[in-house]
Amino acid sequence: MPTESKHHHPRELPDPVICTVDVVLLTLVENALQVVLARRAQEPFRGLAALPGGYIHPATDRDARDAAERVLREKTGLQSPYLEQLGVFSGPGRDPRGWSVSVAWYALVPWEALESRWTDHLEVTSTSQVRGLPFDHERIVHEALDRVRSKSSYSSLPVHLCRESFTLPQLQAVYEATLGETINKVSFRRKMEELGFVEPIPGATTGGAHRPAQLYRLRDEFRRNLSLTDRGINSGG
Amino acid sequence: MPTESKHHHPRELPDPVICTVDVVLLTLVENALQVVLARRAQEPFRGLAALPGGYIHPATDRDARDAAERVLREKTGLQSPYLEQLGVFSGPGRDPRGWSVSVAWYALVPWEALESRWTDHLEVTSTSQVRGLPFDHERIVHEALDRVRSKSSYSSLPVHLCRESFTLPQLQAVYEATLGETINKVSFRRKMEELGFVEPIPGATTGGAHRPAQLYRLRDEFRRNLSLTDRGINSGG
Repeated sequence: MPTESKHHHPRELPDPVICTVDVVLLTLVENALQVVLARRAQEPFRGLAALPGGYIHPATDRDARDAAERVLREKTGLQSPYLEQLGVFSGPGRDPRGWSVSVAWYALVPWEALESRWTDHLEVTSTSQVRGLPFDHERIVHEALDRVRSKSSYSSLPVHLCRESFTLPQLQAVYEATLGETINKVSFRRKMEELGFVEPIPGATTGGAHRPAQLYRLRDEFRRNLSLTDRGINSGG
Repeated sequence: MPTESKHHHPRELPDPVICTVDVVLLTLVENALQVVLARRAQEPFRGLAALPGGYIHPATDRDARDAAERVLREKTGLQSPYLEQLGVFSGPGRDPRGWSVSVAWYALVPWEALESRWTDHLEVTSTSQVRGLPFDHERIVHEALDRVRSKSSYSSLPVHLCRESFTLPQLQAVYEATLGETINKVSFRRKMEELGFVEPIPGATTGGAHRPAQLYRLRDEFRRNLSLTDRGINSGG
């Protein structure tokens, strides 16, 4: 099946492998972590809600990350949200079309970024109620949730679920939703100071005559890189 | 190029992608971290030392991990050493044969496991002197070293570089070689107790009439799973 002209040597090559990307797109709706699913327009599993995914296109994709960003753009309208590689899921049984490799990614976006582009073929499901997904997408979702929870405990990762400006109590609620546990307020503020990825917006406070709260934003240098600490945010240490 | 008979739907499929696995095989020689390279028997880059790697074989490999274990067996004789997925390296430029996805892995083995199977086409190179590798293998090595260093600081990972039995000072030297820094002896012993992945071998001590040292071994339940701590082994905490 492979054409020799494309290769430097005439020995027999193995059968081709199906190469796809799949993205676990996470957002927060009313402080509950949700995964965004897209109804499949094509076989296999046409009509079922699944992770946004698709073939790698060697003619146009620069690499697997580029393919994942393209798939997200095509299926959700999102332009380069925060995106990290989760890993590879592979084997003969996970895709009815044949032996496949899926490069899986997870992405975090504020709900506001999705809401304005919402279309009928999308749905959100609470991460605790993900059921009946095709392929091995449930396994991919669960591995992504484990990774996000673990990484959130020592990094700035959850801030990518926040809108442009937020108060510290709002940021704490986002961490609590991601970690699935409550955090002591004093130790949370100390951790945020240590991590240093947010800055107060000069002169910006929430409305409300009584006790207006300072608004914060993500520092520019942490838009693509996480800020890390070697001690857990929820460890009370 | 793709045959329709194998697929459920007739729409046009993208060109096939070359799918390979590559393994960063690490070992310790005289307490210095080394990467094992294999001289390539085929084009491209025939005769050059490179990471042990090869095509995924859909006809026989159960998944990408199985492919990586097969490649290690074929090129080094090793039977299922400690192996973790590093991530995917992909794009049109990394392999002269065409657009490729490589699922990269790292493996840790004691030198004694390699020595008995050593063949002419293998070589070891100090991780600080890895130069002139084909493909993007230098980048893969550097990302693997970053990952191993980072993970070693809070887990039992380096123990897979130790032989079957070892003293605590020997284990500490292995951690120091992996982390690239010295560790306080008292805090190291406390961390090992906390992690709990080693146990004393009853009645086994090093030879030497003066002050024989207790020998330890890895507990069975940590052969495939790491023991983790949320505070750095080298943090002195």
